[in-house]
Amino acid sequence: MELTPPLDPASDEALYLQLYRSIREDILKGRIPAGAKLPSVRKLCLRMGISRTPVALAYAQLQAEGYLTSQPRKGLYAAALDKELWKEDKLPQSSLQETGKPLVERMPAQTLPAASISSDESRGQIQVDFGYGAVDLSAFPLTRWRRLLNRTLLPEHSRVLLYGDIQGEPGLREQISSYLHQTRGVRSSPEQIVVGAGTYHSLDLLFQLLEGEVRTLASEEAVNDGIKTLFRRFGYTGDSCIPLPLEPDGIRIEALTDSGAQAVYITPSHQFPFGMILSAGKRLRLLHWAAENKAYIIENDYDGEFRYGGRPIPALQGMDRHERVIYAGTFSRALTPSFRLSYLVLPPPLLELFRQGRHSYDQLASPLFQETLRQFMNSGDLERHMRRMRIIYQNKHDVLLETVRQSFGANAQVIGAGSGLHILLRLTTGLSETELVSRATACFVSVYPASVYALDPSGSAEATVLLGFGGLSEDDIRTGIHLLAQAWLG
Amino acid sequence: MELTPPLDPASDEALYLQLYRSIREDILKGRIPAGAKLPSVRKLCLRMGISRTPVALAYAQLQAEGYLTSQPRKGLYAAALDKELWKEDKLPQSSLQETGKPLVERMPAQTLPAASISSDESRGQIQVDFGYGAVDLSAFPLTRWRRLLNRTLLPEHSRVLLYGDIQGEPGLREQISSYLHQTRGVRSSPEQIVVGAGTYHSLDLLFQLLEGEVRTLASEEAVNDGIKTLFRRFGYTGDSCIPLPLEPDGIRIEALTDSGAQAVYITPSHQFPFGMILSAGKRLRLLHWAAENKAYIIENDYDGEFRYGGRPIPALQGMDRHERVIYAGTFSRALTPSFRLSYLVLPPPLLELFRQGRHSYDQLASPLFQETLRQFMNSGDLERHMRRMRIIYQNKHDVLLETVRQSFGANAQVIGAGSGLHILLRLTTGLSETELVSRATACFVSVYPASVYALDPSGSAEATVLLGFGGLSEDDIRTGIHLLAQAWLG
Repeated sequence: MELTPPLDPASDEALYLQLYRSIREDILKGRIPAGAKLPSVRKLCLRMGISRTPVALAYAQLQAEGYLTSQPRKGLYAAALDKELWKEDKLPQSSLQETGKPLVERMPAQTLPAASISSDESRGQIQVDFGYGAVDLSAFPLTRWRRLLNRTLLPEHSRVLLYGDIQGEPGLREQISSYLHQTRGVRSSPEQIVVGAGTYHSLDLLFQLLEGEVRTLASEEAVNDGIKTLFRRFGYTGDSCIPLPLEPDGIRIEALTDSGAQAVYITPSHQFPFGMILSAGKRLRLLHWAAENKAYIIENDYDGEFRYGGRPIPALQGMDRHERVIYAGTFSRALTPSFRLSYLVLPPPLLELFRQGRHSYDQLASPLFQETLRQFMNSGDLERHMRRMRIIYQNKHDVLLETVRQSFGANAQVIGAGSGLHILLRLTTGLSETELVSRATACFVSVYPASVYALDPSGSAEATVLLGFGGLSEDDIRTGIHLLAQAWLG
Repeated sequence: MELTPPLDPASDEALYLQLYRSIREDILKGRIPAGAKLPSVRKLCLRMGISRTPVALAYAQLQAEGYLTSQPRKGLYAAALDKELWKEDKLPQSSLQETGKPLVERMPAQTLPAASISSDESRGQIQVDFGYGAVDLSAFPLTRWRRLLNRTLLPEHSRVLLYGDIQGEPGLREQISSYLHQTRGVRSSPEQIVVGAGTYHSLDLLFQLLEGEVRTLASEEAVNDGIKTLFRRFGYTGDSCIPLPLEPDGIRIEALTDSGAQAVYITPSHQFPFGMILSAGKRLRLLHWAAENKAYIIENDYDGEFRYGGRPIPALQGMDRHERVIYAGTFSRALTPSFRLSYLVLPPPLLELFRQGRHSYDQLASPLFQETLRQFMNSGDLERHMRRMRIIYQNKHDVLLETVRQSFGANAQVIGAGSGLHILLRLTTGLSETELVSRATACFVSVYPASVYALDPSGSAEATVLLGFGGLSEDDIRTGIHLLAQAWLG
């Protein structure tokens, strides 16, 4: 079809953002019907009189988010979205529209708690540890934090030494609310933010608030082990916990519709551990399901800000118009896990439950660190830091993928690349996961079996291991992959 | 009876400590029979050829701990302890014997989480707030902490920016173990310590570990509100939670024996909120009950180190020979609640359960603060700080008591003085608790009703309010009490 997106060269907004937004709206509003073929990059840039780059970027982003589907050797087509689910007045704002940040402003990952990471001592002679919880500290702004901490510890600020606000310090909540809006498209007021001391601490509160209402919980079929422990703790096991099969574009929505669940746990921006993105069509159906059933969507945006080769996928929360999405995030990856800082964005009904106090939540995040982080965010330091880290991690990511390609060729398939601080490696060597892990250990390399993340461990998955790279140097990554190739390919 | 305790003038141990220890052993071993009258201070010091002071101090301590009972105008008598409960090989070590610290080395309180404390903003025009969670920050060693934090944030220590040991940093656990031994007589190895981010965080873990074994929990009939919330969260309500009546020498042991409980929650050094000390006789019977029934004793030693006018009451844990006592403490009062640092001492069977990992515990105490506190303890700074704080708090305590005496005379009775950072005031003015609180608020003073701490709120208690003084200046205390006298006696 013909396509002539209105572009304003005088706008502050980059061309690719204007293009992205315009095409996205046309698809959502049906002006580009489902199945319509889009003009090629070449054709569109000629027609618009602009260069290739903005068109290619806009198309890539729309494709990643599921608004466009690709048919090999044919071209790009508008995806079949259920328009009924999307009233005109509900057009999602995206982080893109609102901040107009250029593509290079992607940010590093949010959390993955390191429950499975043991200490160096217990590792013996391990040379390279592909554990997924590590972050790169070499670029941590130690001097800046020392300075901010020193300032916060002056006598005139001594209130940070007292018990703080149970919900988190108001100044920090303002910063988080504005930061989530700018970087993730999350819409919140500071009153809706509840600061926590780590993702599990935040989710523990959330499950307490949901306890009366949620008898059956649905979840992606593979989750972090700490999440699994929390499910168990709150009684979401057996028939009370419905695992949803994962497809290349995210959870199978039909399985959710049939589940009878009152809430669903999901990592839509980058599924943990498999890395897929929940498509636009499924997002709409998911939000519709939640609104219809008055069910909650628990969105753990563990590394939503941290995507290579495309701008970040906007948070599901920003598309919600029925107060059904609970958004959870953390600073453990963006900064360091040592400050113990995370957050929830509660929809108003849950905020009300929180304030009624029928929970055992204690504010375990230090007011001292909360105030220091507030200053760090307010001065723009966090943004600068994350830009720096994104480049560092992207380089590591690229080194990892290239070394895997060179060393394994057709013997391994990489899953979930392009985002976050880990990938999955699926081996076609005939070795079992257990054999892969033990042979790696014998060569002094730690890798982690992916099957442990399955909610239902009876399913037989192909042998797959998880490789975290955040805390490793580029040389470590190369050495580690070479050792693994020796260990597994002989 | 005649009494000639063996004293060694050449010993490093202070005379009063030698006396205390010798008489205590004689009573426990039956060499001084129950009901025997002890020589008066004057007689004993003449006989021993020593000054009055050590004899008076030893007697006062033995009386506070329940080894001696006083009969007005008659004298001191050996208490009736059940000797069967105390085999010779089980003689308790006390903090006193082992460290030989003089009486003046008492230390300030451990925790009282400030669940009920709201922020200044919500208080409106309150001039004096007798909330019980506040500590005095004017003497906090800010400069020293800045220096230690700066040192910890040097690049060579950057491992404190990673996820730490789930149980707490080993170096800090060594310091805590040794500190508890020296100051509280607690016997532990560093392996038994589990660092937490606050008393409730530590107790949340503990209740998770006990979940399978403890169906019925007994507890002092009045507890902190945060504790009550935890009980409720773990299902210890109704028939599963047995309130034990409080007597002047602590819980009624018969009620415990009849309870069928598998664990008991208790604050033996200084009951919260009433301030009584569990007597020596009851301690023995409590330990006996736990050993016989393979039940657990949860000892929350929230301000055990902080006693005016006597040395600290040794922890119950130090008398336990059957691994039945779980000891909980915090640094929120000794230092500041802002660092979020607490600890549990787990007996070996529970430590084993912890290591098996059937819990959702996440280490929420920052490794950065853990390392800084390790240095602060290792250098002797903590000890110096606590000596300083004890003097500051004792002065406030004395000002409070004296002002109450002058202002209220016979209209009020002080309960639970001599320890910690709060007292209770029982009013005989005929006003209800609600009236006391609202009249105080009208005069811009915040006080807190004691009845909210009752597990069974149906009991009709006399009108009693809680007055915390830790965070108030001596002038604030005087002003506050004068305003209260106007409001209530008016």
